[in-house]
Amino acid sequence: MKHLSLVALAVAGIVTALPAAAQFAKPEDAVKYRKAAFTVMAAHFGRVGAMANGRVPFDAAAAQSNMEVATAMSKLPFAAFGPGTDSGDTRAKPNIWSDNAKFTAAATKMQEEMAKLNTAAKSGNLEQIKAAFGPAGGSCKACHDDFRKE
Amino acid sequence: MKHLSLVALAVAGIVTALPAAAQFAKPEDAVKYRKAAFTVMAAHFGRVGAMANGRVPFDAAAAQSNMEVATAMSKLPFAAFGPGTDSGDTRAKPNIWSDNAKFTAAATKMQEEMAKLNTAAKSGNLEQIKAAFGPAGGSCKACHDDFRKE
Repeated sequence: MKHLSLVALAVAGIVTALPAAAQFAKPEDAVKYRKAAFTVMAAHFGRVGAMANGRVPFDAAAAQSNMEVATAMSKLPFAAFGPGTDSGDTRAKPNIWSDNAKFTAAATKMQEEMAKLNTAAKSGNLEQIKAAFGPAGGSCKACHDDFRKE
Repeated sequence: MKHLSLVALAVAGIVTALPAAAQFAKPEDAVKYRKAAFTVMAAHFGRVGAMANGRVPFDAAAAQSNMEVATAMSKLPFAAFGPGTDSGDTRAKPNIWSDNAKFTAAATKMQEEMAKLNTAAKSGNLEQIKAAFGPAGGSCKACHDDFRKE
């Protein structure tokens, strides 16, 4: 059976002083980037969910490495919701920009819940992971319900 | 001027023992995932390139954090080139699977060049970054030339 390597990432810090507009050449680049970051996050988060829900056997090392990646990815997309990135190939709702404080709060909540699940994954304790997975998934859903079109 | 946070990630380790087939429910999920990982990598790599090429002012902290993300992302896509992921919305050429040893060597080369550029970025020395950027970009292009359709 072929086995794969999976890379564990760790959030190392918060840096930079680049203005938002300088980070993406075109609005569609920002849209593509943020969707990509969410895609990678969801893949790794989903693998932990499969363990939390008993669909696959619990593997403490895999849970930990997947949550490291998911947690790191949770920090990336929100730099790409700048002005002018509200159209094109996106399901982003206009209230992301018209009610930006609420959107930022929802994003922060998700990041916090991912960090908590990451801590649980580091513990290697499946019960702690199960307890933290629900609120983390809930924070994804809450933001989708409010800020993402069907 | 609005400033953005950008998250620095660090490669923390190589883990896991999940078989490839268990990582993605459907081949199209693997295709979407690997493209997303490349998209995120390219965005952060490109920001370092803009500094290396003098298109934007050198910012040592931004170069370092962007290369941390790019380097970490360079580890992710290749778990998603498993059997059966050669069709659908992909420009992957058949020789990825028919000449897999060569593909793996090209992927490894890219990861190594990204790691070297990451080391250069950590040094904070623009000349070192410039010297390492060319080979890193070349390793991307070489793999695209051989294994990606136009």
